[in-house]
Amino acid sequence: MKTGKVLLAHGGGGQLSDDLIRNYILPEISEEKFVELNDSAKLDFESSSLCFTTDSYVVKPLFFNGGDIGKLAVCGTVNDLAVQGATPMVLSLSLIIEVGFELETLKKILSSIGSEAKKNNVKIVTGDTKTVEAGAADKIFINTAGIGLRLPGVDLGFNHIKAGDKIICSGTIGDHGLTIISQRQGIEFQSKLKSDCAGLGGLTCELLKKYANEIKFMRDPTRGGLAATFNDIAHQSNLSVNIRQADIPVNPTAQAAADILGFDILNIANEGKFIAIVSPVAADDCLNMCKKHTLGKNAAIIGEIVENKDVATVELETSFGGRRIIPMPYGNELPRIC
Amino acid sequence: MKTGKVLLAHGGGGQLSDDLIRNYILPEISEEKFVELNDSAKLDFESSSLCFTTDSYVVKPLFFNGGDIGKLAVCGTVNDLAVQGATPMVLSLSLIIEVGFELETLKKILSSIGSEAKKNNVKIVTGDTKTVEAGAADKIFINTAGIGLRLPGVDLGFNHIKAGDKIICSGTIGDHGLTIISQRQGIEFQSKLKSDCAGLGGLTCELLKKYANEIKFMRDPTRGGLAATFNDIAHQSNLSVNIRQADIPVNPTAQAAADILGFDILNIANEGKFIAIVSPVAADDCLNMCKKHTLGKNAAIIGEIVENKDVATVELETSFGGRRIIPMPYGNELPRIC
Repeated sequence: MKTGKVLLAHGGGGQLSDDLIRNYILPEISEEKFVELNDSAKLDFESSSLCFTTDSYVVKPLFFNGGDIGKLAVCGTVNDLAVQGATPMVLSLSLIIEVGFELETLKKILSSIGSEAKKNNVKIVTGDTKTVEAGAADKIFINTAGIGLRLPGVDLGFNHIKAGDKIICSGTIGDHGLTIISQRQGIEFQSKLKSDCAGLGGLTCELLKKYANEIKFMRDPTRGGLAATFNDIAHQSNLSVNIRQADIPVNPTAQAAADILGFDILNIANEGKFIAIVSPVAADDCLNMCKKHTLGKNAAIIGEIVENKDVATVELETSFGGRRIIPMPYGNELPRIC
Repeated sequence: MKTGKVLLAHGGGGQLSDDLIRNYILPEISEEKFVELNDSAKLDFESSSLCFTTDSYVVKPLFFNGGDIGKLAVCGTVNDLAVQGATPMVLSLSLIIEVGFELETLKKILSSIGSEAKKNNVKIVTGDTKTVEAGAADKIFINTAGIGLRLPGVDLGFNHIKAGDKIICSGTIGDHGLTIISQRQGIEFQSKLKSDCAGLGGLTCELLKKYANEIKFMRDPTRGGLAATFNDIAHQSNLSVNIRQADIPVNPTAQAAADILGFDILNIANEGKFIAIVSPVAADDCLNMCKKHTLGKNAAIIGEIVENKDVATVELETSFGGRRIIPMPYGNELPRIC
């Protein structure tokens, strides 16, 4: 590389593209030294019962306390597979890079992708790199798509949810979104906020292997936060969701940040948490299993599914004993949170 | 929708995101009216022997003679699966949209995605939409990842290529790249140039089902064109590639455009063509099968694989009887061709 910056020609499909892939990308993300670079990856799985997902990551800033766009691109896609009852297996990696982007920064992001993939036991098996002229993109956007193997006997879905089911939240909420917003606005809190960005596949697989018949539904409450997740559950199951504010795990710094910035923490994105709807008989056991895992140590049962009186709603019992309806967020004006 | 333009809030994960997906995206790309919108799609294939690929599309302009970014996003990914010996099955669709982008234009692109997917017999099963502020992206970028089922008994790869194998080119070259470049530069040629953008899965599967043991390797010569494809073949197989200029199918308008604009047509991207390396005994039969298909009617045998004398090179026998080495393109300065 004669330059420290990404050039248009790095995306041209010629010698420089090959250099970028072989000298910058592959060393960070692949353990196999001599990869045959082909149009697509050949895969042989143990089963043909799969999950498939995709997400593009446009987070700003690229580096934040607790992670970066690369870590997020691995964890977010891993989590979308995990909460559907699959063991995350492989990812694709597609980069759109603005010309002039520092190669050293790219290397940092790729290194983060590589180590997070390893941590989550997923392989990056296929990819693509595009360059666009300066001003046509904001630094770098990353897409990952993922394939997971569905766990035998696991069939999660809105249709299994019943009145009486308990709602487990795997840990403190709001940390990711508030970290990004605070950092973007240059606000520093006394005790620092930290994104919860993490891959949940290990914990979800452990739970689902033991409680395949008792766990009805899972979701990672990213954009739109708990509010969007619960409203979707209510809408799709035609049952109401009752949650208790006092039981929702919240990091005090995150709550302070939400209060100061004027956000309802229920609307804020999480990147390392899941919501599980579990039959009442197994809820305590599931909760205990969560609590033994690093990523679930603050888990709590925060509410339950109830028959709806009239229309399916999401109702919050506030810490002061009041009750209020939690609406579907209309579409908050916080772009580029993930 | 109260507005004709994409808003930041369309990417927020709330009500407006849901509206965008249900009212704009799903009606164009899905035949199922009541799709359960989940974190990932559950799939059950006939076999667990798959191909997996991804590409991001950043083409400029978004609409060009012969296609648009949506059609390209389907065909490009379909082709990456097809040339690896797989039947394209499902795609993911991820959009990064600049705020202010016209919803009507988005609808046109989505409609093109939907009809092209149908034409190629692939389903779009999972997706994602991100919005970024004005100026943070140039209108719209699209990523598609794809899964294909590998055809039984088909095992394409550089390692099968032998001296004596014939090289089939499925049709005229350079049409896509030259259409984009000409349109971008505002140059109009007397007879109009038209992109060859097309999905090749039908033709490649037909060929591979009949000639599984005779076809050694396939590739769609996109960025970097024939020059990059052949240099990669030479480099990876350690055999030389001899091609004959007189036999390479070229649309005269495309040749004229390349000459006027100063491009070597061998370096120009194609989006509806493949190169196949075929054993000599089956080459004529394969060629005839191609010629019977709409997408292969101009196919030709354009050269052969030969033992290398010293180092593996790509050599062109010019129409005037001269010979020249075709180098790997260094990285041409033509971004956003696909």
